Amino acid sequence: MVELSIALHYVFDSPQDRFIFDVSHQTYPHKLLTGRSYLFSKIRQWEGLCGFADPQESEHDHFYAGHAGTALSLGLGVAHARELKGEAFHVLPVLGDASLTCGVTLEALNNIPKNLRRFLVILNDNKMSISENVGNIKNILSRLINHPVSNQLYHDVSSVLGKIPGCGEQLAKQGKKLTESMKNLVSPAVFFEQFGLSYVGPVDGHDLSKLVSTLRALQESERPVLLHIMTVKGKGMSLAAENPTSYHGAKPFDTASGQFLRTASQVTFPKAFGNHLLQLAEKHPGLVVITPAMPAGSCLTGFMERYPKRCFDVGIAESHSVTFAGGIASLPSLKVYMVIYATFLQRAFDNLFHDVCLQRLPVLFAIDRAFLSGPDGPTHHGVYDIGFLYGMPHLIIAQPRSQRLLEELMDESLGWTSPAAIRYPNLPATDFLPDQTRGKEPRPLGTGEILCEGDDLLLICLGHMCSVGLAVQKRLAEEEITACLVAPIYLKPLDRDLFFRLLQKHTKVVVLEEHSILTGLSSIIEHFAFENRLAHIDLLSIGVPDTFVPHGQRSALLKELGLTPDAVAKRILQHFSWSEVPVV
Amino acid sequence: MVELSIALHYVFDSPQDRFIFDVSHQTYPHKLLTGRSYLFSKIRQWEGLCGFADPQESEHDHFYAGHAGTALSLGLGVAHARELKGEAFHVLPVLGDASLTCGVTLEALNNIPKNLRRFLVILNDNKMSISENVGNIKNILSRLINHPVSNQLYHDVSSVLGKIPGCGEQLAKQGKKLTESMKNLVSPAVFFEQFGLSYVGPVDGHDLSKLVSTLRALQESERPVLLHIMTVKGKGMSLAAENPTSYHGAKPFDTASGQFLRTASQVTFPKAFGNHLLQLAEKHPGLVVITPAMPAGSCLTGFMERYPKRCFDVGIAESHSVTFAGGIASLPSLKVYMVIYATFLQRAFDNLFHDVCLQRLPVLFAIDRAFLSGPDGPTHHGVYDIGFLYGMPHLIIAQPRSQRLLEELMDESLGWTSPAAIRYPNLPATDFLPDQTRGKEPRPLGTGEILCEGDDLLLICLGHMCSVGLAVQKRLAEEEITACLVAPIYLKPLDRDLFFRLLQKHTKVVVLEEHSILTGLSSIIEHFAFENRLAHIDLLSIGVPDTFVPHGQRSALLKELGLTPDAVAKRILQHFSWSEVPVV
Repeated sequence: MVELSIALHYVFDSPQDRFIFDVSHQTYPHKLLTGRSYLFSKIRQWEGLCGFADPQESEHDHFYAGHAGTALSLGLGVAHARELKGEAFHVLPVLGDASLTCGVTLEALNNIPKNLRRFLVILNDNKMSISENVGNIKNILSRLINHPVSNQLYHDVSSVLGKIPGCGEQLAKQGKKLTESMKNLVSPAVFFEQFGLSYVGPVDGHDLSKLVSTLRALQESERPVLLHIMTVKGKGMSLAAENPTSYHGAKPFDTASGQFLRTASQVTFPKAFGNHLLQLAEKHPGLVVITPAMPAGSCLTGFMERYPKRCFDVGIAESHSVTFAGGIASLPSLKVYMVIYATFLQRAFDNLFHDVCLQRLPVLFAIDRAFLSGPDGPTHHGVYDIGFLYGMPHLIIAQPRSQRLLEELMDESLGWTSPAAIRYPNLPATDFLPDQTRGKEPRPLGTGEILCEGDDLLLICLGHMCSVGLAVQKRLAEEEITACLVAPIYLKPLDRDLFFRLLQKHTKVVVLEEHSILTGLSSIIEHFAFENRLAHIDLLSIGVPDTFVPHGQRSALLKELGLTPDAVAKRILQHFSWSEVPVV
Repeated sequence: MVELSIALHYVFDSPQDRFIFDVSHQTYPHKLLTGRSYLFSKIRQWEGLCGFADPQESEHDHFYAGHAGTALSLGLGVAHARELKGEAFHVLPVLGDASLTCGVTLEALNNIPKNLRRFLVILNDNKMSISENVGNIKNILSRLINHPVSNQLYHDVSSVLGKIPGCGEQLAKQGKKLTESMKNLVSPAVFFEQFGLSYVGPVDGHDLSKLVSTLRALQESERPVLLHIMTVKGKGMSLAAENPTSYHGAKPFDTASGQFLRTASQVTFPKAFGNHLLQLAEKHPGLVVITPAMPAGSCLTGFMERYPKRCFDVGIAESHSVTFAGGIASLPSLKVYMVIYATFLQRAFDNLFHDVCLQRLPVLFAIDRAFLSGPDGPTHHGVYDIGFLYGMPHLIIAQPRSQRLLEELMDESLGWTSPAAIRYPNLPATDFLPDQTRGKEPRPLGTGEILCEGDDLLLICLGHMCSVGLAVQKRLAEEEITACLVAPIYLKPLDRDLFFRLLQKHTKVVVLEEHSILTGLSSIIEHFAFENRLAHIDLLSIGVPDTFVPHGQRSALLKELGLTPDAVAKRILQHFSWSEVPVV
């Protein structure tokens, strides 16, 4: 991207010409070249530069993009809009090879008009998404690479064919087409040309002058063009080039040695999930795991290595992954764990509805990153999924507050015959309370948990927010206010007996969750209260407000949104007039 | 499908071998062949046969499928599950050519393993979805058809090449590959072979003995195969073959003449939308319309004919359609109307989030079929969208109760700078009340409407349910109970002043909507009540319960769900103890 960004800015006229970056974390060099270098020390931090393209940051950024595969569709939209307005600028979608595994990109390929001018797609091919790419298109792209002599061969064969005598009139007529089709032997050209894109490449993406001359040559094309450039992920830093997955979105490291700085090695929810999965898999030969291109992030590499036949990485293809999961789960005795980030599950909602819930298939959705993701920002915050999950008939929805509860839910999920979802964040999963409620017996489906008793306030906390709730409970105790802290564990089915009892007893109620306040646990409790004529309560909802939360360190975001223990305690004191500070 | 179904059942052993039908309304012949002929008189009716494949109906139906493009993913899942379990049955996804425009199918194509045995994909190609197909893949499939002599040519050329002397060792080595690549000139083979599918075809899909012999020959393939059959939509009935779109999911017609029986020609919401769109388009040259393969259903054919350059049918590619809409809307002065069925918008939720709402682009989503769709059943009921829409920051959500209000909202939407959604059902849009609230002034954004005043009860009705509400209000009046009937029109932003005043005044409140009760208007009102400390009300939610509603005539469904005026009135009387019938 360094060389490509320089070449693009050298040849084209940004922002008039539009570079449309797919999963736009590739825009760092572009940002440096468009006047933002002095802001780099605070990139991905609160009020600092965004880690993706961001139209609010610069007129050179046209779309905020953090999910893969959207650039081609967006580019087609911009190019059509340009034609409708009679303008003449260039449109350049810039995408990685992994985006070709996405349905959106493939749907867009089907919609490229053959006569679209000034539309130049740049395919930056490093053979990687975060991990190695998968699937058939990967092989199409590497045709040339697998045949080092083939480019020469192509020219030889073309020349030979030109000299064949007596092939009849028909062959002569088809001559040009024949030559074109020969490329299929030796290059990915046919793949793109059948979608109406003139293929040019492959070009060494690290050869700046070659890039500049190629872009210049293609500048005034009257037909849509795809330029295929080959790059090395991590080029310029040997450690990164040798360990491309580790250095994708790298954690802080020592710039001299390249070694990552040590961070606290607490067990997180995803790690706990990955570890426990290995134990379950040993006992249950029918356990199958699916990931859409996130084996490392979702802590599945251990499982993948030990049970390669039972682990499917389908690439960045979320819709397919969920329907595929439904297909597997349709055979009895197989249990499918569909492991997916909350924000990416948004891409497979219809599949979850149509191919899993409607079929009542026992797929378990392990919904990772169900939280404010911090530096990745709004495209990655997993705070909307309850909104679309809750309305799905037959679906079990649960969220554990700790490693122990996650493991318990995973154990029990093996017996569930309905589709189910277990949400969890990428945060430490430490048990912060002694095991109080569980003996040897399994917890019945839909059973919540009281973490501590209290009379003045009912504090309902979702999953990891129990730890905030516990700190709040302690602060309130200092004011001689006793709070009953309850974790529903199951959002669906809700523990109706428990909440009926608690809402009968309490009039002051707080719901605390790291989810959009409009469609999360709060609305579930509200509905339960009205349904059971228990609405004579004063309910305060604390969660993610109705706005796109920016990027930033988690601590900064929580502070900004008032989700720290101090801020929550203060809001509670104000809301219930326990404090002298007036209610805001 | 008639001939194909016979051939499939003749050659393969269902249900052990799995036919997996895409958008499974193609299963009528299959149903006839699997013991269901005597039930056909009640197909698509309440408690009658389902119009799609339905596992609850027969062991020969493996998945309930009403959305296009899922069969290949499901089939891959089933085939992998088979391998894991060491079984040996055949898996046969059966899909139409239109499913190749879907991202899910294309993602699945990328994930076909080259060594998957007993996996036979049947591509039933009639060059149509509901309307004519669009896009580049359509052209790939018709390669052969466009070149009548090309099949012969292919053999000629292959034979010529085999005789070329002195082409060097390299050409000889590549001989087989070269021959294969030649097919690219004359058939769709390369397209599928690059995805690991051995291509066979095209075969005349109406030639039964050819189908049987071909299926037999392919039965024991050790590699995945795609069989391409060519069929004529409506074959066997000339009127249907000549008017394939009209006879797709035909309304009742005279079997002798083929003429459709006359039905009441009331203006429906989609028709009113299509008509008013033409008026708006005349005044606003920047108005652009997008449809994912539903031009006829969404009443856009008039617009398409008059403004072909401003109307984009992108095929069954919902995800792309919405991201593409974002691309167009990113240029100022263009207004995009993204017209999509509620149930299909589920396929583009992430695109709506990521490429429209997050960018704050003024795309207007015209959400058609936002209701219980009746005979189409659970895959088509549009009763879940508020759940995922409501949590989206910046999004305006509105629902009109009549043609006049729909037109009013459309007029006003031209000035909206935020993304917005207008939901409506495919039902008559007649104004059932005199125009009482609107003069010449535009209604401010977020303004609701009181339809009639009353003291005993507040009845909040969503969109077309106002007509039910009005009938309920009259029945209650007979019991000397006066109801205030209010239509929010805007779900977001809600008319806060109006609802604050109304909830202060009333203690008995009913919400009436044709949406999942868990995630619709009811939960919005509930949240508003708690947020404003107005929860000291008795709120009764009447809507679609938490279950998948089956197919059937609308009247039967409404009766079953208690959504008729009589049933609603009765529930209200019981709930508020106005009736002597005990509360259920």
